[in-house]
Amino acid sequence: MQKILSDPMVIKEVMKLNLPKDAIVQCDPWMYGADRDSTRDTHKLIQSLLYVRAPHNHPDSNQYSFPLPFSAVLDVFLGKVVRIDALATGGKEDCLAYYTSGTHPMAHCVEHEYYHEIQKECPRQDVKPLHIVQPEGPSFTVTDENCIYWQKWSFRVGFHYREGMTLHDIRYDGRPLFYRLSMSEMTVPYGDPRSPYHRKQAFDVGDAGAGSTANTLSLGCDCLGSIKYFNGWLNDDKGNPVKAENVICLHEQDGGIGWKHTNHRTQHPAITRARNLVIQSILTVGNYEYVFAWVFMQNGNIEFETRATGIMSTSLIDVGKTSHWGNVVSPGVLATNHQHLFCLRIDPMLDGPENSIIQEESIAISQSEQENPHGNAWRVMKTIFERSGHADANPFTNRCFKIVNESVINPVSGNTVGYKLVPQPCQLILAGPDSVARRRARFAEHHIWVTRYRDGNLWAGGKWTNQSISEVDGVQDYASRNEDVRDRDIVLWHTFGMTHNPRVEDYPVMPVEIITISLKPSDFFDKNPALDVPQSRQEVNKSVLVQDSLQSGWKEMGGAECCGLKAKVWNSGTDMCL
Amino acid sequence: MQKILSDPMVIKEVMKLNLPKDAIVQCDPWMYGADRDSTRDTHKLIQSLLYVRAPHNHPDSNQYSFPLPFSAVLDVFLGKVVRIDALATGGKEDCLAYYTSGTHPMAHCVEHEYYHEIQKECPRQDVKPLHIVQPEGPSFTVTDENCIYWQKWSFRVGFHYREGMTLHDIRYDGRPLFYRLSMSEMTVPYGDPRSPYHRKQAFDVGDAGAGSTANTLSLGCDCLGSIKYFNGWLNDDKGNPVKAENVICLHEQDGGIGWKHTNHRTQHPAITRARNLVIQSILTVGNYEYVFAWVFMQNGNIEFETRATGIMSTSLIDVGKTSHWGNVVSPGVLATNHQHLFCLRIDPMLDGPENSIIQEESIAISQSEQENPHGNAWRVMKTIFERSGHADANPFTNRCFKIVNESVINPVSGNTVGYKLVPQPCQLILAGPDSVARRRARFAEHHIWVTRYRDGNLWAGGKWTNQSISEVDGVQDYASRNEDVRDRDIVLWHTFGMTHNPRVEDYPVMPVEIITISLKPSDFFDKNPALDVPQSRQEVNKSVLVQDSLQSGWKEMGGAECCGLKAKVWNSGTDMCL
Repeated sequence: MQKILSDPMVIKEVMKLNLPKDAIVQCDPWMYGADRDSTRDTHKLIQSLLYVRAPHNHPDSNQYSFPLPFSAVLDVFLGKVVRIDALATGGKEDCLAYYTSGTHPMAHCVEHEYYHEIQKECPRQDVKPLHIVQPEGPSFTVTDENCIYWQKWSFRVGFHYREGMTLHDIRYDGRPLFYRLSMSEMTVPYGDPRSPYHRKQAFDVGDAGAGSTANTLSLGCDCLGSIKYFNGWLNDDKGNPVKAENVICLHEQDGGIGWKHTNHRTQHPAITRARNLVIQSILTVGNYEYVFAWVFMQNGNIEFETRATGIMSTSLIDVGKTSHWGNVVSPGVLATNHQHLFCLRIDPMLDGPENSIIQEESIAISQSEQENPHGNAWRVMKTIFERSGHADANPFTNRCFKIVNESVINPVSGNTVGYKLVPQPCQLILAGPDSVARRRARFAEHHIWVTRYRDGNLWAGGKWTNQSISEVDGVQDYASRNEDVRDRDIVLWHTFGMTHNPRVEDYPVMPVEIITISLKPSDFFDKNPALDVPQSRQEVNKSVLVQDSLQSGWKEMGGAECCGLKAKVWNSGTDMCL
Repeated sequence: MQKILSDPMVIKEVMKLNLPKDAIVQCDPWMYGADRDSTRDTHKLIQSLLYVRAPHNHPDSNQYSFPLPFSAVLDVFLGKVVRIDALATGGKEDCLAYYTSGTHPMAHCVEHEYYHEIQKECPRQDVKPLHIVQPEGPSFTVTDENCIYWQKWSFRVGFHYREGMTLHDIRYDGRPLFYRLSMSEMTVPYGDPRSPYHRKQAFDVGDAGAGSTANTLSLGCDCLGSIKYFNGWLNDDKGNPVKAENVICLHEQDGGIGWKHTNHRTQHPAITRARNLVIQSILTVGNYEYVFAWVFMQNGNIEFETRATGIMSTSLIDVGKTSHWGNVVSPGVLATNHQHLFCLRIDPMLDGPENSIIQEESIAISQSEQENPHGNAWRVMKTIFERSGHADANPFTNRCFKIVNESVINPVSGNTVGYKLVPQPCQLILAGPDSVARRRARFAEHHIWVTRYRDGNLWAGGKWTNQSISEVDGVQDYASRNEDVRDRDIVLWHTFGMTHNPRVEDYPVMPVEIITISLKPSDFFDKNPALDVPQSRQEVNKSVLVQDSLQSGWKEMGGAECCGLKAKVWNSGTDMCL
């Protein structure tokens, strides 16, 4: 970054912007993705997005409100800037001209801070503390450094520079379920066609590394309750091991009502609360954050939860303009439309290594006197994957995919034992079939991939990502081997995500957008596995009744009066409020 | 029910079953839905599903494991059973013959208990207590009995015998958002075509009543933390008011990370925890339970969460048989395939009573040198509803529906202020177009309905539900008035739900199946509304570090050793374990 900021070409361009004297320019380096049909050696190039730290000049001031109208391209081998790319700032007029706002192109940008010490508004005062207290400690046990036991579940946790947190040898009550679970890849293609914005396509697992960018988590900040941390190992540029501290956290959460039935004859409720085990890691990839968590449940479900947060990548837009390719989220600040497409790698071993995949749908049948005289019936249709391949989500037919072990029959129902995945029916990659953006992320063309297990087949987008012009050795290649996948050692892949056309509410830091993928037992057990969770009782839960009489006392603390407390907080010195 | 059980025709049929001497027969009355083209007075009929309380004979023993192979039809006006319907028990052979298993048709059924005191297995012993503690009390205020203030939100809560909990006059920071939010209707059509099973179609709002069936909630059982309860009013059969105690509960929950960004230059994280306000009601409708909750968030989101739990409706199946129309979940017990289709009524008033609805999609555009040279761009297409009507979900185009106020422009983006709903893309009603099941639940034919507001237009399925042969005065009728709905007082309706083909794991009581619908601000505010949530800090959150040294002590408490504790628990007398 320093090489870019000190380059004479860059300094010359910055001088033209007539920025305030004390302005500090900052640089976000981005991968320089290969262009279509490119024969140039793009692998040696880095593109930069440049910003000015806000006039306030606090080290944590938000640069993304002041995007510069040019990008500098660095040749890593030469160690110098080889090109300055003007950035279009004309909005719907798609004007490629530079400095369309005249001699002070960024004069309409305003400070928009998120860091609590420098926000203009006082923090709200009416959030009362909430503690998660486990007086007897958590219900989990950790042995052998990374082996976790909890509520009939057992698994091992690993850490990888590329995939971050990985899970291994997942069992319930001793029965094997999954050999390995991991976030295999993700891509974030941006939808602005104006060069060089078209090159923005992040691969935050394959390029940035979900392990390399994992946050060191902090007690009481990232985590609430009784928290166990795990360290990981990375390496420095000499290959020496570097400890990555507290990159994974483990804790329990209350999951609300787990199951309930009240016998209406006796009015006796049978009720349990669900307790969940959460193992979590947080990534900071430049401007953006991902919170990845695996959630284990007493009812046999495993969920993978993704929370997308952080700051959207921004670019400059002239005063008064709007754009087809994004939304204005702060004066002069265009947040570009983009997609997040993740690929989960699910390596099953349900009651053994040989498994099969069944696609299941609910299909209406025609009204007929023989079979369906009243027209109310449907059939559950099953299709088994014989060869490796792909499939897509279809919520309108209730489509789900079942991992089954055809050799093990559920004694109650007579079906093969299984776990089901209902794919999240996200919009798939929007980039056109001939675009490089799509060619190098073929995994984002389908929701479901079924492949035969092979050592090293771990990366949905292939080993090389942003700097390739097509996906090589990725899940599409694994699937196209057309291998026998019935009753074999197989892998199921699920591509999910979202198209994110930014809202004003997503700035300056976006509230978490949550996507949850579930793996649920489906005739794997012989009854509700959470049946033996004890009755929910006040003696254990120690809830507190909020009395009406107390409430008149709280009225004066209502949200509307926050401003009146400003001076008090300022004087107390516990919060700094400008 | 007593009239059915004491009827000589029923007693005669029961005697044929050769049940144990002390068997107690129980009766679940069901609405007797009109048949297609029926001219009979079905409104006076009640159909019954009959069961034997399990041999254990505890009052809370699970009857649903012992379904009787016939149904009795009661004429309410005559006060006597007028017909006995034989129930098919032949599974895939679709045998309509009665007593196919010979003289002891229920001999293969076995006890399968859920009530904690009579479960055969010991409850698991390794769930450590987890308390939600708010030492300074909750952050909400309740005034005027039903007016709730919390974190810039305000709203009133109501209670209705039919809809149960309703919300009114919902505002954020004083700005009006929604005039009324309610669960308008739901239908549960079953997919077994064999008469009389085809008549099973519950309307648990319009027929049973989400208010009439609301549970009296209990501290520490249904609710964890600092809980405020609300009472409602119902009436008895003379019209006298009857207090419905504790039918609604209100509490706060931690919602995990709300937003986070770490400035990678300084390594300073800005992080907040999300605090949610949950207002909840639970229904018991015969065999089944629904947990309905509205969740308010600091970031401006409102969510409606449905948890489906309880016991599935079951019927007898002969030994060794399976069925196309359901799954065997216990010996002799067929749980029938069914759908749950809910309709949420959303009456908006975003910055005033006149609002519009926009359908928005993200559509790829072709690669072209003029507009999209690299093929990476898409357009956000908007279609406004001019006339009342309907639409469907389409996650593959990222379709969402925005409620907007065309007279109020967001000062940052220049867009109309709005709230967006991404419809849950559920499978719609499977019953055929000519079936009565579908004709009387037209609301379940589309995910989205947009209507002009009229007083009394509250019931998506019409005033009369199961006993009608077509939906009359329901949302399809409201929509078909073809009224002007642009910049008018309008109502948005969302049909969502699931097709539930039962798993063995759903028996005897099913683990909650959760569906969440979100209403999110979309250029309604001028920034992230949760920006002023204070930094998450250990001084406030008081989390506890789980030390490695403690963990060896817990090892012996691992789940696998639960059985070893059985005798101890028995002796302690705190749990009764058979």
